[in-house]
Amino acid sequence: MAEAATRRRARGGGGAARRAERTAVSVETAKYIERNIPNYEVLNDEALEMIEHNAETVLEEIGVNFVENPRALQMWKDAGADVQGERVHIPRGLARELIKTAPSQYTQHARNPERNVVVGGNNLVFAPVYGPPFVRDNAGGRRYATMADFEKFVKLGYMSKWLHHSGGTVCEPTDIPVNKRHLDMLRAHMVLSDKPFMGSVTEPSRAQDSVDMCGILFGEDFVQQNTVMTSLININSPLTFDEVMMGAMEVYAKNNQACIVSPFIVGGAMAPVTVAGTLTQVLAEALAGVAFNQLCNPGAPVIMGAFVTSIDMNSGAPTFGTPEAAHITYGAGQLARRLGLPYRSAGSFNGSKLPDAQAAYETANSLNMGLLSGVNFMLHSCGWLEGGLVSSFEKFVMDADQLGVYHHLAQGIYTDENGQAMDAIREVGPGGHYLGCAHTQANFKSAFWRSEMLDYKPFEQWADEGAQDTMTLAATRVEKQLANYQQPPLDPAIHEALDAYVAEKKASMPDAFS
Amino acid sequence: MAEAATRRRARGGGGAARRAERTAVSVETAKYIERNIPNYEVLNDEALEMIEHNAETVLEEIGVNFVENPRALQMWKDAGADVQGERVHIPRGLARELIKTAPSQYTQHARNPERNVVVGGNNLVFAPVYGPPFVRDNAGGRRYATMADFEKFVKLGYMSKWLHHSGGTVCEPTDIPVNKRHLDMLRAHMVLSDKPFMGSVTEPSRAQDSVDMCGILFGEDFVQQNTVMTSLININSPLTFDEVMMGAMEVYAKNNQACIVSPFIVGGAMAPVTVAGTLTQVLAEALAGVAFNQLCNPGAPVIMGAFVTSIDMNSGAPTFGTPEAAHITYGAGQLARRLGLPYRSAGSFNGSKLPDAQAAYETANSLNMGLLSGVNFMLHSCGWLEGGLVSSFEKFVMDADQLGVYHHLAQGIYTDENGQAMDAIREVGPGGHYLGCAHTQANFKSAFWRSEMLDYKPFEQWADEGAQDTMTLAATRVEKQLANYQQPPLDPAIHEALDAYVAEKKASMPDAFS
Repeated sequence: MAEAATRRRARGGGGAARRAERTAVSVETAKYIERNIPNYEVLNDEALEMIEHNAETVLEEIGVNFVENPRALQMWKDAGADVQGERVHIPRGLARELIKTAPSQYTQHARNPERNVVVGGNNLVFAPVYGPPFVRDNAGGRRYATMADFEKFVKLGYMSKWLHHSGGTVCEPTDIPVNKRHLDMLRAHMVLSDKPFMGSVTEPSRAQDSVDMCGILFGEDFVQQNTVMTSLININSPLTFDEVMMGAMEVYAKNNQACIVSPFIVGGAMAPVTVAGTLTQVLAEALAGVAFNQLCNPGAPVIMGAFVTSIDMNSGAPTFGTPEAAHITYGAGQLARRLGLPYRSAGSFNGSKLPDAQAAYETANSLNMGLLSGVNFMLHSCGWLEGGLVSSFEKFVMDADQLGVYHHLAQGIYTDENGQAMDAIREVGPGGHYLGCAHTQANFKSAFWRSEMLDYKPFEQWADEGAQDTMTLAATRVEKQLANYQQPPLDPAIHEALDAYVAEKKASMPDAFS
Repeated sequence: MAEAATRRRARGGGGAARRAERTAVSVETAKYIERNIPNYEVLNDEALEMIEHNAETVLEEIGVNFVENPRALQMWKDAGADVQGERVHIPRGLARELIKTAPSQYTQHARNPERNVVVGGNNLVFAPVYGPPFVRDNAGGRRYATMADFEKFVKLGYMSKWLHHSGGTVCEPTDIPVNKRHLDMLRAHMVLSDKPFMGSVTEPSRAQDSVDMCGILFGEDFVQQNTVMTSLININSPLTFDEVMMGAMEVYAKNNQACIVSPFIVGGAMAPVTVAGTLTQVLAEALAGVAFNQLCNPGAPVIMGAFVTSIDMNSGAPTFGTPEAAHITYGAGQLARRLGLPYRSAGSFNGSKLPDAQAAYETANSLNMGLLSGVNFMLHSCGWLEGGLVSSFEKFVMDADQLGVYHHLAQGIYTDENGQAMDAIREVGPGGHYLGCAHTQANFKSAFWRSEMLDYKPFEQWADEGAQDTMTLAATRVEKQLANYQQPPLDPAIHEALDAYVAEKKASMPDAFS
């Protein structure tokens, strides 16, 4: 009397159609998610007000450090803050007042206007993994990332239907000098994909290079009038803003380019071990960072970020997909909405060394909370492995496939006459089955989300075909997507101008590897 | 500038403490979950009322079949239904009226009172996988389940800290005759574990055996006055109630034992392909089934179940962890709460052949929605593999470990003075770190959930120790838990009486294998 036993009756044909679908080349990209479902709110108003009060206390009494940045300190002084050395004490309410000029949503343009994304509101934009120095694949194992790896990830991102954004440092191309790699990375995003992308933040001059290369790609006037990049500005938690990140942010803000201002927190190390304490610090840091962004240019697009994870207090290792990270992600979403700011959090986070069950449990926990917490921009939505040390090729396509789940979840439940399906229930009646009924025939193609890479085969067929696990299926999909990749068309004059810019910049300075 | 790069600073010692914890034998069982977080509600009142209206229309106009069950038909006639042959047309509002006698929550007693569970309200009780004819482990692959496998699963359940319930048919012991295996299964739950368990439903006589054996274990008076079993009554969807299940339910209801009345639906096969249509059928079936339960004995404890999954319209395979299943699980939870009934749904559902990434993505999707949808009794919360055809030893311990995530998530966010952690933020200040501060020292042991089996090691150590994936770690944990298992004490007289009952019953009938 197993529940499983009854399922056999549901099996049927359709194998040929499935095989045909699997061999088709697709560069279709789904529109960013427009949620038609509510956000999950874990904190009540009283708790939110308490955290907001405490965050203002932190800003006023403890203050934040703007390090080696006399100009920032002067801007804060001019805005009414109490500046003592590098410590900025922000009077209660000042930061909140300053951020009122920040837009609640903005459009990031792509070179293909069909790929434009609107960040904010009920929307959710997925961007890939960012920052790992290593890559991993089934065939080659774990190794330092190269520019060739970087280009493969950009191609996979372009081929991923549920991924809206090409991202930024999808892995660190460690074979290119540190002071030049941003040029190659930007060119790869611009040439190999037509999805929106991120700019460099590792030096203010490299942020300027990013703006200048966008001028070539989009036209300088267009860039001055439109947002064409969303870039990641990490706060050096706790409560510290370094001059490199702030300098890069200043360049972007003054050019009306979007920044994610993001506390970077491993709870228990860079923030208190409690959730409410961490949320207080996250809010204080975001308020100070976003306010400084608006001081640089009132009205510049800016996202409130929260990169927060927990720590294994036994080993000191950061941990992912944990309940505490979920609490913080839900709570920070509520705080961002009360500020009227777009929100960045969650991702394909996990601490596993392999794209195995641990990786998937932790990732699914994080992606689910990301959808329900109201995240607007999800960096790291696919490809993250080993606590962010590794970009995994197999996990990239596994996660990118799972992102389809969230597109369908976010649609909500259709309750029109077709959704109610009363005619079908009448037609089939007690003891019948719905496989052949008119309503099923009319709706089956769009009714259920289906994975393009997971295994739905009968056991015997699966066994005959080599009993492949998910990682093996993913390795095949990586190969197939790269083989099917075709570069999106780009005006040859623009392509040449980008190449010339990169060549000239590279020739203008000696290599640096640190 | 990887986010990953910064994490290294969070690493530290504690390895010795971790190793000590890992070698300790533990039969600690966490209390069932008492949620301190809100439920996620995807349907608005208008949609809920529409579905409720449609479900009543289904019951009145289409009706339900009670097959080969003249007594049930007479009971329905006496209650005011319009019975035509085996078809029962239930007038609008009648079923809803009948279920008002069902309790909104009940206590299921275990032979160890510390393991009692309260089903209903904000609570969530985890029970293991139910029903698979096959088992799988890393060493032996997939094979028909035996009684020896069954006993191993009961032992693993007893050893699982986050599992509150021993379950029922954790796998089908196919080496025991069909008409006798319920006796061995019940004895195993009663003797090898002291957690609450489920009764047999495959024949009314076997339900009676279950009641009688509970009489031996708990005392007959106790059983008549208390609920000591929760048993699974599947509806033969669409809209059909077979005589075996209804007969078993009658036995349980009359003895005040709890039943889960559960539509069993693969959407598109046993229900419409749309979510709202499926919810309508789920509600109609649950209303009819729970009402019949109350006709058998007003006030008997009963759970509204919803086992619902989607179908891959290409292959006909049932699919798990899908967005449509999530919609239905959230929606059915709302409908159950409006009826004031405890709710059963979700589980460690997946369609994978192996405990790999596919299994974990799909399982985590389902477990997350189970927590947030307000499920009160989660059958299949660990160990499910391959669409329910297989009970997996490795997946059992992997899932059982993950269930800890939901215990911590459900605690909600502490906002007392210690939770706010303002002293810690003051103490550490900008640029410091929290690892050594007083607040961290006072809270670190309980602050973060940590897995007892996933890998948190540094890469080099992990590689040196064999680069084990999650399945390999789980296989080790299975072995260790079985090696550490110690049978909970049981009065020898009761043990002998149970053995005698089983022996006598078995001797009284010939073997049957179908």
